[in-house]
Amino acid sequence: MSTNEALLTLEGWYTYHNFRTINWEKWKAASAEERQAALDELFGLIREWEANEQEKQGSTAIYSILGHKADLVFLFLRPTMQELDAIKTAFNKTRFAAYTEAPYSYISVVELSNYVHNPGEDPKSNPQIRERLYPILPKWEHICFYPMNKKRNLQDNWYMLTMEQRAEMMRSHGMIGRKYAGKVKQIIGGSVGFDDWEWGVTLFANDPLEFKHIVYEMRFDEVSARYGEFGNFLVGNIVTPESLTQMLQV
Amino acid sequence: MSTNEALLTLEGWYTYHNFRTINWEKWKAASAEERQAALDELFGLIREWEANEQEKQGSTAIYSILGHKADLVFLFLRPTMQELDAIKTAFNKTRFAAYTEAPYSYISVVELSNYVHNPGEDPKSNPQIRERLYPILPKWEHICFYPMNKKRNLQDNWYMLTMEQRAEMMRSHGMIGRKYAGKVKQIIGGSVGFDDWEWGVTLFANDPLEFKHIVYEMRFDEVSARYGEFGNFLVGNIVTPESLTQMLQV
Amino acid sequence: MSTNEALLTLEGWYTYHNFRTINWEKWKAASAEERQAALDELFGLIREWEANEQEKQGSTAIYSILGHKADLVFLFLRPTMQELDAIKTAFNKTRFAAYTEAPYSYISVVELSNYVHNPGEDPKSNPQIRERLYPILPKWEHICFYPMNKKRNLQDNWYMLTMEQRAEMMRSHGMIGRKYAGKVKQIIGGSVGFDDWEWGVTLFANDPLEFKHIVYEMRFDEVSARYGEFGNFLVGNIVTPESLTQMLQV
Amino acid sequence: MSTNEALLTLEGWYTYHNFRTINWEKWKAASAEERQAALDELFGLIREWEANEQEKQGSTAIYSILGHKADLVFLFLRPTMQELDAIKTAFNKTRFAAYTEAPYSYISVVELSNYVHNPGEDPKSNPQIRERLYPILPKWEHICFYPMNKKRNLQDNWYMLTMEQRAEMMRSHGMIGRKYAGKVKQIIGGSVGFDDWEWGVTLFANDPLEFKHIVYEMRFDEVSARYGEFGNFLVGNIVTPESLTQMLQV
Amino acid sequence: MSTNEALLTLEGWYTYHNFRTINWEKWKAASAEERQAALDELFGLIREWEANEQEKQGSTAIYSILGHKADLVFLFLRPTMQELDAIKTAFNKTRFAAYTEAPYSYISVVELSNYVHNPGEDPKSNPQIRERLYPILPKWEHICFYPMNKKRNLQDNWYMLTMEQRAEMMRSHGMIGRKYAGKVKQIIGGSVGFDDWEWGVTLFANDPLEFKHIVYEMRFDEVSARYGEFGNFLVGNIVTPESLTQMLQV
Repeated sequence: MSTNEALLTLEGWYTYHNFRTINWEKWKAASAEERQAALDELFGLIREWEANEQEKQGSTAIYSILGHKADLVFLFLRPTMQELDAIKTAFNKTRFAAYTEAPYSYISVVELSNYVHNPGEDPKSNPQIRERLYPILPKWEHICFYPMNKKRNLQDNWYMLTMEQRAEMMRSHGMIGRKYAGKVKQIIGGSVGFDDWEWGVTLFANDPLEFKHIVYEMRFDEVSARYGEFGNFLVGNIVTPESLTQMLQV
Repeated sequence: MSTNEALLTLEGWYTYHNFRTINWEKWKAASAEERQAALDELFGLIREWEANEQEKQGSTAIYSILGHKADLVFLFLRPTMQELDAIKTAFNKTRFAAYTEAPYSYISVVELSNYVHNPGEDPKSNPQIRERLYPILPKWEHICFYPMNKKRNLQDNWYMLTMEQRAEMMRSHGMIGRKYAGKVKQIIGGSVGFDDWEWGVTLFANDPLEFKHIVYEMRFDEVSARYGEFGNFLVGNIVTPESLTQMLQV
Repeated sequence: MSTNEALLTLEGWYTYHNFRTINWEKWKAASAEERQAALDELFGLIREWEANEQEKQGSTAIYSILGHKADLVFLFLRPTMQELDAIKTAFNKTRFAAYTEAPYSYISVVELSNYVHNPGEDPKSNPQIRERLYPILPKWEHICFYPMNKKRNLQDNWYMLTMEQRAEMMRSHGMIGRKYAGKVKQIIGGSVGFDDWEWGVTLFANDPLEFKHIVYEMRFDEVSARYGEFGNFLVGNIVTPESLTQMLQV
Repeated sequence: MSTNEALLTLEGWYTYHNFRTINWEKWKAASAEERQAALDELFGLIREWEANEQEKQGSTAIYSILGHKADLVFLFLRPTMQELDAIKTAFNKTRFAAYTEAPYSYISVVELSNYVHNPGEDPKSNPQIRERLYPILPKWEHICFYPMNKKRNLQDNWYMLTMEQRAEMMRSHGMIGRKYAGKVKQIIGGSVGFDDWEWGVTLFANDPLEFKHIVYEMRFDEVSARYGEFGNFLVGNIVTPESLTQMLQV
Repeated sequence: MSTNEALLTLEGWYTYHNFRTINWEKWKAASAEERQAALDELFGLIREWEANEQEKQGSTAIYSILGHKADLVFLFLRPTMQELDAIKTAFNKTRFAAYTEAPYSYISVVELSNYVHNPGEDPKSNPQIRERLYPILPKWEHICFYPMNKKRNLQDNWYMLTMEQRAEMMRSHGMIGRKYAGKVKQIIGGSVGFDDWEWGVTLFANDPLEFKHIVYEMRFDEVSARYGEFGNFLVGNIVTPESLTQMLQV
């Protein structure tokens, strides 16, 4: 829990987006036995991740990624950085990992920003807030990930605004988000001190046009228009054990 | 269909620009049989893509690319992101893919922006609009692709303008475009939430100088002059089955 | 021929700067026979390029490049993009190409900008103008290549100036150029719509200090000082068949 | 010791952050004997580094790094650049190094900036100051590293401020730091003239959220808000001989 | 010799910074005979470079580089670009080169800027000036290299200042430099038209802290504070034939 000028930010699970590119040539050159052994091992890990989710000790999602930037993303939410690191090492030691490369990743912590704070309240005792800090990832059709900063460029400097100015702008920003309730689920990862941008945003939707609509509509909002700075966008489709098996069938 | 301050934007097919570089050394080192098998498989896919276009379920174009940035672009328009992903995976599993690399790609959705909107109208019932949202790609001699943003830099901030200001500027911008009717065909891909820029622009022309003229003329228009931010430009020549076979003959 | 606010720009041959890095280890590991076969094939192409120049159907130059960015540049001027593409493919299929990589390239079209235009005149009937649009590349000792843009940054926005302002500035800019007549030969390639910058500038000189002097002197001129944006600079020495043979002797 | 407008900056040990990525495929493909030999050699070096620390001739820390940017960081503090170079060469000659790559590194010198200077005092005779210039690295659970500059952008130009303005801002900045005493230990490496940024900041904490809180809170401070320019952030977990052995067990 | 608004700039020897990274795995895998042959050949070149320096036809220095950016720099000063190119090719053909890569290089010409010019004087007849234009590189312990530009950003535009303003600022800048006489030796390479930045600065010192002090102190000077734009910094230790032999002993 951090405080800045009476603002309260809550943190939940740590997140690790593990983007992977498949070396198809190597994969195809492997023997059928080797490929099967690699898949068995990978699905063994997937079952461990599912068990972890069943026990509400974290959550995991796998999506395929469009375009050349990556082929898959494995998204992990876990209580500690040690667990994220253990997952990385375990993944890297698998046979499957040797057929992939890691073009990108992102480290953050699920974050909930309240600009109005009632003193005396313990926010983590609120089940709705716990659900947002320790979320079970939805099994929706599509994922969108992008990192972002708040700008600090001459007169467009978010961090030089007063708390009131920021709170007011975030309020109107939040109202756009609410219009997409049920259509877009969003997880904000705070990454100040952890990765190269200040936040990593992960969106889920069943219709990918909703990603376009929410991001575009927000872009006209002063928070984004004047103060938003965006990194790469990655978009993908959900992967089930069956579709992953089929994808990797050669 | 998204609305922003009474602006109406229509979306059609999703697009995937798959740029590939050929590893000539590896290709030449392959046996004639292996190369033939790779070509047979590639042309099998091409025939599938042609059938898809015949059935108006999408459109596909193949162009060679000048310079070192890529050797070929395979451009796909399809109704869903799932189909784009399936095409990517199918391509990556071919023998031919193993002789290429993917230096770049772009994901977007065909977009039509109307700044004047007649309420009550269903734009998608209009055949002319359908033709622009679900276009069959022209078989013109040359292609030009570039991604772009609208700037958000201090006083040059597109997203802080009023709808009237934007509509007025887009109108004059559109008038330049209309001067090139019949000479340049343009497909605007909206990529907010999908890829690293806000739009991906694909131009077709029989005379490549038209690319230079239209882009240069527009650069003096305030929309581009003050608010346009451009990425890499890739230019190419159309490829037929015959010329592709000849290109890959070693 | 494009017109913008009464400005006339003339275009001539398309240009392709093909920068190559030599893989010396691979080249040295090749057998003497293989190297000789590679050189025979390369010199076969060089003779074709010379024949093309003799017939005034284009022009070709080869220079070695200093530093780590490249080892050689093959510069081609040709009437069409199809020819540039055919040259690229033919080069990439040679044995020699397999001992090199392509770290960089540039695509443009020879461009002549006149800010004063006499209506009724057909500029391409003028032999002096034809010589500048379809130039035979000089065999001078040194080459310098760099790409550039005109800036569009807040109050330093070239494209928001009036035609009169631009014409006045270009006039004074041109006067600096004229001081170097006989010492520096310059070819301006327009690359709007073709490559990542708006222009590619190729300079030739017998004394490389002239490159430094002309570029530095121009940098104080308002056109460059306020509006010039420059990419990488590559500098090199002329290569003859004899010196190329010697360079590649191992 | 350098002076600038009566400011006194003290320098201590030189620092070398040696980030490494493990090539797991190669490591797994090595024989058990080869891996053991590589580990024996690595642990031999680690014992040398420990001995060096025991003799207070320097300090060394090893952390694993989260995400794809690196797998490990070896952080060395030593009295001279020659020693840093000797460590690099010795490391690079080990068997273990051949299973890794060096995606990143950072060179700096431990720096202590006093904005109030009592003339006549010899700061290096003060044991508390010596401890900060020649620190034994804490064995805390987590590390965070990032490089930074002070901005020089138009009206946001740190280096154009008066000494009084800078001293005043640094004072308030330091007060935030003091709030984290006992929770965050920070080592400032001055790298002007040594590496690509002006400073390299290394933070240690037992709770990684403290990294987020201190960096975020400071971001609202004018020194960072207007004048801070930040590079990549890398975050990691402490590694013991046992956990390193386990991490490298395949 | 170029003139700009009565400013006189003198040029001397061309410079080539050849940065190399060693592939230690490959080097260790080579047989002892192969390594010895590679070293013999390398030291043969070193003797040629020493002879060239003895004859005052140029100067050469070799330093090891700290961190991951490079392992060695070979710095050459020669009268012509042809000689720099011949050195590059000769180096690239050696056995040793095959165990290295070239991550970076820099091309410039030793430059002496006089802001006060006495007409009628031939500066190159002055031995002190000749010594600075054709310098024998000092055998000092440490080297620091960085490229730089003078900014052209809106109101911070060096090239829009008057000659008087620039001369005045350079005078105060030079006075800082003079304070470091005997502690820091600096060679300014002009690289406008030759490489990606306008200047390449090479500093020599026996105490590397002097690099930090001079660069930091100058950063508060208006010339650097408002107008300096800096690239990567590389720092290193001198290498003798003995220490190079030892470094490469495996």
